[in-house]
Amino acid sequence: MNAFVPTERSRVRRRPQRAAYDEATVYGILDAGVMAHVGYAIDGQPYVTPTAYWREGRKLYWHGSAMNRMLGVVGEGVPVCVTVSFLDGFIVGRSGMVHSLNYRSVMAFGRARLVEGIEARRDALNNFIDRLYAGRPVKLRPATDEEVAATAMVEMEIEEASAKVRRTGVADLPADHGWTAWSGVFPVETRIGAPLPEPGMGACGPPTPDLAPYAEGVRLDEALSAAARASSPTS
Amino acid sequence: MNAFVPTERSRVRRRPQRAAYDEATVYGILDAGVMAHVGYAIDGQPYVTPTAYWREGRKLYWHGSAMNRMLGVVGEGVPVCVTVSFLDGFIVGRSGMVHSLNYRSVMAFGRARLVEGIEARRDALNNFIDRLYAGRPVKLRPATDEEVAATAMVEMEIEEASAKVRRTGVADLPADHGWTAWSGVFPVETRIGAPLPEPGMGACGPPTPDLAPYAEGVRLDEALSAAARASSPTS
Repeated sequence: MNAFVPTERSRVRRRPQRAAYDEATVYGILDAGVMAHVGYAIDGQPYVTPTAYWREGRKLYWHGSAMNRMLGVVGEGVPVCVTVSFLDGFIVGRSGMVHSLNYRSVMAFGRARLVEGIEARRDALNNFIDRLYAGRPVKLRPATDEEVAATAMVEMEIEEASAKVRRTGVADLPADHGWTAWSGVFPVETRIGAPLPEPGMGACGPPTPDLAPYAEGVRLDEALSAAARASSPTS
Repeated sequence: MNAFVPTERSRVRRRPQRAAYDEATVYGILDAGVMAHVGYAIDGQPYVTPTAYWREGRKLYWHGSAMNRMLGVVGEGVPVCVTVSFLDGFIVGRSGMVHSLNYRSVMAFGRARLVEGIEARRDALNNFIDRLYAGRPVKLRPATDEEVAATAMVEMEIEEASAKVRRTGVADLPADHGWTAWSGVFPVETRIGAPLPEPGMGACGPPTPDLAPYAEGVRLDEALSAAARASSPTS
């Protein structure tokens, strides 16, 4: 089983029994999400920017929207921490300390670099669309060189990554026994809602196969994982 | 209307028409969430840690779980960026550039400080429980001094904050006209699932009024906002 090798930077210190470093766990979480929190620092000031991302092999990609501040400092590669997390439930106990959350998360470390060259950026843009909606790029109006030039694409090879998962029930303490407050878990589920076709854009018909993972009621993480499996990056 | 005053640090540069700095918008987003991404840097290396948080007035709080690395450098106050975001939908267009996401997010800047003293930390712990489950602390086994001492609580006064929201449909381009790919929005909704009472913890009965916001099928953001309105912090 391929795994990331944790260092002081990425080793989980708090509750290490919840940690994992294998690619299957890390990639499983990364492929279940579309919104990452990208952290970087400028002169010691941290910034955490939410942004859409995707993964290809050991690389993460995102594009320049809202990243201008960071792009100004990328240069030869700025250290970055990309974190993806999902809230899965509220843990309600019988003492304050026992209250918790169920979650899945990954922290990935590396250096952000700009993707250089119009064709490489065009490939990255198409891969991003394809990763979310497999087979869709050929159905779209092709991006002009001007559009591609206006879009900064960032790539980061994952140097280290750790996953952390809590998925159990209430971690009851012996001292809580005899207390009668309701105790249990409220699960949290994120799902796709009813599609809203854009009005006035012609007879587009129902969503096409590239959009099939996003059927109403499907769990978001399952939709994104299915879309990732169907995708075929070209780069 | 009270508002945060943006500086170079917090001013939204990319798509400023989506930005807001007023307390009502910023607090409305912060109070709709429970999981923040806390960013800090050690020797230029950024870390982004997902953690449960809550708000009281202009202060954000979180506790020490998973924050050990940061707590080691808090000292007189380390600069922090706390980001909260929600994914609200996938925007599917007829050209690659038009694809987007609907979202709500806040970036809040300040300096993290440890809450000092057993009683202040006990208040903070109870306020955290009360913020999520109003009126619950008195139903619980009180935390021992040892338990409180083992829990690091962090507070951060928000010095600056910006909100950024996209909630519209497809931002069609004239050049896309005539292309027939399906176009529209797939909404994303996060809701509370069916409660899972903990087995073997005695006859706790159904969830009590402090847990009422977390009724099955309620939107998570609405549950958390309702819980925040019902809460009465003691500090």
